[in-house]
Amino acid sequence: MTSSNHENAAGPLTRLWGKIVGFALKLKKLGKDDPRRIIHSFKMGLALTLVSIFYYFKPLYEGFGLAAMWAILTVVVVFEFTVGSTLGRGLNRMLATLTAAALGIGAHRLATLSGETGEPILIALFVFIIAGIVTFLRFIPQIKARYDYGMLIFLLTFCLISVSGYRDEEVIEMAFERLSTIVIGSCTSVIVCIFICPVWIGVDLHNQIATNIEKLGNFLEGYGEEYFKVSEEGQPRDKSSILDGYKSVLSSSSKEETMANLARWEPRHGKFRFRHPWKQYLKVGSITRQCAFKIEALNSYLISEIQSPPEVRSIIQEASTAVSSECGKALKELASALRKMTKSSAAERHIANSKDAAENLKSVIRSSLSKHDDILQIIPAGAVASLLCEVVKCTEEIADAAHKLASLAHFKNAKPKVTPEQKELPSQGIVQPVSGIDGMHHVITINEPSQSLQENRNLPPAMAPRMEV
Amino acid sequence: MTSSNHENAAGPLTRLWGKIVGFALKLKKLGKDDPRRIIHSFKMGLALTLVSIFYYFKPLYEGFGLAAMWAILTVVVVFEFTVGSTLGRGLNRMLATLTAAALGIGAHRLATLSGETGEPILIALFVFIIAGIVTFLRFIPQIKARYDYGMLIFLLTFCLISVSGYRDEEVIEMAFERLSTIVIGSCTSVIVCIFICPVWIGVDLHNQIATNIEKLGNFLEGYGEEYFKVSEEGQPRDKSSILDGYKSVLSSSSKEETMANLARWEPRHGKFRFRHPWKQYLKVGSITRQCAFKIEALNSYLISEIQSPPEVRSIIQEASTAVSSECGKALKELASALRKMTKSSAAERHIANSKDAAENLKSVIRSSLSKHDDILQIIPAGAVASLLCEVVKCTEEIADAAHKLASLAHFKNAKPKVTPEQKELPSQGIVQPVSGIDGMHHVITINEPSQSLQENRNLPPAMAPRMEV
Repeated sequence: MTSSNHENAAGPLTRLWGKIVGFALKLKKLGKDDPRRIIHSFKMGLALTLVSIFYYFKPLYEGFGLAAMWAILTVVVVFEFTVGSTLGRGLNRMLATLTAAALGIGAHRLATLSGETGEPILIALFVFIIAGIVTFLRFIPQIKARYDYGMLIFLLTFCLISVSGYRDEEVIEMAFERLSTIVIGSCTSVIVCIFICPVWIGVDLHNQIATNIEKLGNFLEGYGEEYFKVSEEGQPRDKSSILDGYKSVLSSSSKEETMANLARWEPRHGKFRFRHPWKQYLKVGSITRQCAFKIEALNSYLISEIQSPPEVRSIIQEASTAVSSECGKALKELASALRKMTKSSAAERHIANSKDAAENLKSVIRSSLSKHDDILQIIPAGAVASLLCEVVKCTEEIADAAHKLASLAHFKNAKPKVTPEQKELPSQGIVQPVSGIDGMHHVITINEPSQSLQENRNLPPAMAPRMEV
Repeated sequence: MTSSNHENAAGPLTRLWGKIVGFALKLKKLGKDDPRRIIHSFKMGLALTLVSIFYYFKPLYEGFGLAAMWAILTVVVVFEFTVGSTLGRGLNRMLATLTAAALGIGAHRLATLSGETGEPILIALFVFIIAGIVTFLRFIPQIKARYDYGMLIFLLTFCLISVSGYRDEEVIEMAFERLSTIVIGSCTSVIVCIFICPVWIGVDLHNQIATNIEKLGNFLEGYGEEYFKVSEEGQPRDKSSILDGYKSVLSSSSKEETMANLARWEPRHGKFRFRHPWKQYLKVGSITRQCAFKIEALNSYLISEIQSPPEVRSIIQEASTAVSSECGKALKELASALRKMTKSSAAERHIANSKDAAENLKSVIRSSLSKHDDILQIIPAGAVASLLCEVVKCTEEIADAAHKLASLAHFKNAKPKVTPEQKELPSQGIVQPVSGIDGMHHVITINEPSQSLQENRNLPPAMAPRMEV
């Protein structure tokens, strides 16, 4: 009773303290997860401090007067985390202000011609019509994706110029002041954003696509072992698992599209050209997602309550594990090559192996599995096997899309690290010419995918080797 | 040759005309798809015209002066398509301006105490610190989801008030003017948005969840027929099909989350209370998506090249079609009840039927399917059967989540339309008490789901019967 009272008395303060500590830990984790967030916060402070210099220096202030606050406003609104986003907003804002100011002045002139009574009526009519049209145009998906902010600023500037023109006869000067302060604000934002630790959203997209392929590879590499471990224990495994990394791929579609739209604003940086094939990234992403749906189906057999008995599963264990792990290795090779921006045929070997393993799996099923009586017990294992065969096909499609991306984006050939002797070892895998890639030679490249990927994962995406300018 | 030249000459003009016509058709389609877009455009025009009255009436203008343009700016920026979004932005803008103005005045006072040299340095320091903190806080997911715009406006107002205070001694008056014009702009937006054909995002979310369940129901109702039609023709069907409606459900997650976040801003409207259980909508949506993943797997057997031969499939045809169509009917009943905001046990009957059919399917597989020799030919059909059994489980989960939603949101019981005689007809289905719903009676409700849903589908979502205020 006393201790309970004591707890209650200490309660509010302890709880408050607990909440503060929890909040601080959350902030720490946010910064640790992506240190670029801390840098971005400093950059925002710097850009705003820079632009407020307009108020401190009398000569500059007297040139622009009150309009100088538009520069501050612009920095707050335009400065974003990534270069693509900042550039997109900055360009949208400047272009929209320019065109809207011109149109606003025109509307103002036209309205003054109609006399003192007609002017406000005409202006109101213009505002109503332009507002309606611009608002409706913003529903067009293509405009919404890239020029939504520009349309908003266009409407804003048009209203401000044409309406305030009714009172302020120096409407052209006002438009010029507004335009020039906005240009100053946008340029400050863009310069700080690009020249101090830039965050390229194109690099983020590139890494995200590679990471997604890698996640599927991780799942497939571990799947065989996990599935037949279930078999040995006779129990379905726990619902949460290290294999669940692929789940984020299932719902990555809208995020990838937004990133690609923003990446298109970015100038040439590092190995990324101005017209980098961002659409092909979306295609690779979409095929990866298709594969993730198959993997979701495979995963459901891990946690399903209806399982084939161990003796049934042990029949297909060897062949299934081979298919799964070869597909996994192929995907990880593809992810690694993509991340390094190289053309590599290292995955071809694993794909060929996985195809052989799939044929093997089919013949095992045909010869041995049918000897069992209870068909209900065979079906789960059979379904897993047939899904694995489909995953082989998916892996091939991902490889094709990734190779097409490599050729569109002019990735360089990976340096062959293999001695000629190794080429003759048949156990090293099958050497096949790579179709669909111009100028690709018959090279076996031995990368160390797991190690190098591990290293990359510990770095924030933009700091992955050879990505940064 | 001549005709080709002729075509070339007419080319640019014809192409331009074609483009204009294409654009016009696109606009027409946009308006036809959702007529609320046209109304919204008119509303935007109206709100802006209303707020520019400040400039036309001299007494009002003289009260606010140039600050009146903040009202116009606020309307352009705050006025959004849905009530939730407009209210969220309006409240964020007003509260953020209020707190930032207070803090800005405080910073200004503190800075003036430190003399003429110290003032700009202190102000710059404040701006740098506040900008850094606010920018970092915007990375917290919970803040980003609901208060991102408020944080932006807070930073904006703080900078404007504290920095411009260095030149303008009437800093309190400026803060007051800014605040009051922003309140006027926000209120104009909110009033026009709510009182002229309001678009409630809560209603949209409600309808979207119901539509998603209905899409899965449509797929399952048609699946049996489609799958065994493939069987008869011996050919996999075309890749595109009317059954593909479910595909949009696969990637609906982020959209639903955004909608739920915005819906929380909306006041009581129609049957939606202020604290409507939006989180439960997200749960129903998430379970529906889980079911859609199973359906994606089912669909892959429709377009797969490896198919069980017709004689194998015909064995499971009757039982499979029964499972699939009963699940489909159950889902459509659930969607219909959800859309009408009623508690209904109509789906229970179909779920019970689908469970019986699933048991039947299992015994068919056990008894007849195992007589076939080639196990490879049996596996696809067996996998379809086992997936259908999992879909039964998913359907039950969706029903549980939907029932929980109905009880949390205090949906009314559906009116029993059945005469007592019908209760005794066993062929009408199984009458079961519904678990998990308070005060639910043993009622069979006969709705006409397909017809009523068809009617609703032709209306824009917010105009579905009994949804609108």
